[in-house]
Amino acid sequence: MADFPKCRRTGWDDADRWADAIAQRVRAAGRMPQTIVALTRGGWVPARLVADRLGVRRLVSLRAQHWGITATPSGKAELTEGLSGPVRDQDVLVVDDITDTGESLALATQHVTEAGASRVESAACLHIGHSKFVPTYFAEEIARDAWVWVVFPWNYWEDLKELAARAYDETHGASAAANLLRERCGLDASLADVTAVLGAERPNP
Amino acid sequence: MADFPKCRRTGWDDADRWADAIAQRVRAAGRMPQTIVALTRGGWVPARLVADRLGVRRLVSLRAQHWGITATPSGKAELTEGLSGPVRDQDVLVVDDITDTGESLALATQHVTEAGASRVESAACLHIGHSKFVPTYFAEEIARDAWVWVVFPWNYWEDLKELAARAYDETHGASAAANLLRERCGLDASLADVTAVLGAERPNP
Repeated sequence: MADFPKCRRTGWDDADRWADAIAQRVRAAGRMPQTIVALTRGGWVPARLVADRLGVRRLVSLRAQHWGITATPSGKAELTEGLSGPVRDQDVLVVDDITDTGESLALATQHVTEAGASRVESAACLHIGHSKFVPTYFAEEIARDAWVWVVFPWNYWEDLKELAARAYDETHGASAAANLLRERCGLDASLADVTAVLGAERPNP
Repeated sequence: MADFPKCRRTGWDDADRWADAIAQRVRAAGRMPQTIVALTRGGWVPARLVADRLGVRRLVSLRAQHWGITATPSGKAELTEGLSGPVRDQDVLVVDDITDTGESLALATQHVTEAGASRVESAACLHIGHSKFVPTYFAEEIARDAWVWVVFPWNYWEDLKELAARAYDETHGASAAANLLRERCGLDASLADVTAVLGAERPNP
């Protein structure tokens, strides 16, 4: 029997709330970064929202490639590609969606430091207690023993596709797969969405 | 008297709907890009949402710096910084939020082509009829004579700050500025939001 993670589906209200909280904490610390570096892919949306709130116009992307499988708490991170712009002598805030193992943000801040940034801080929407890396700012903490797979509104289809395929392998039906996701993962996805990601090769009997 | 643009405030439902439409049109054309290139800053959120729907994991950022002022239909674009990753021999979809003059997407597709991409198409959430450049895919068209300044959920605070400051210059009060924005721009922003962006140096008498 496949292992299904507990999921928490989040929405755009959460994303706005997280960005508000991060911006508020950056301001409360008396800080104002010159450049926001967003980790690809998870950091793009939060970085854009935090930049909008702080009035930071300089956004740079940094690719951190996860070598892992969706919906597992483990997975190694490696920086496979560079920055979309220079950060030398810049006061930088590095943003990602979630710390999880913390490896991505740890590598990213190190990379940005080595690229000559004058100051590097970091932020994540969600910080998981078991992370080896604690970001300078985070909007919300998930306790170590309360780990869930967070389904972000910018990653919903990818997560659903992965999980629905695994559920279908067990249930051999789209409706049953949707029920399994709801009951075992706590992931509320409509039958239409589940059917869409399963595709024609996995029919509902 | 300052010139105030007609605004259309959009939300996350719009963003999801635009991404659905673009992904659906890309699929309907029988296409599947290997890499999605997002224009900084406006393209990041739409690119992330389109990538999620298409299952494209390779996201690359391209900085296009606008030399213009918020809330004007004109403004020149120039590519000031490069790509966050290589696109050589890649089938690429370049994504931005809105075409407006079209200069950003025109420059970006040219830049990606010159960087060695094997095929380059483009997408925008909104396409304005007066744009010199027509993207391969767009979710919605705004007629040439129906131009509005589109306030995206990822640019709300920046737009509001710019517009509220101009409104305050005329009204000398936050409540009156909020009213002006509502009546002359069609921009519904709460007094709390307007007060927040005006800051302590612009009190409400």
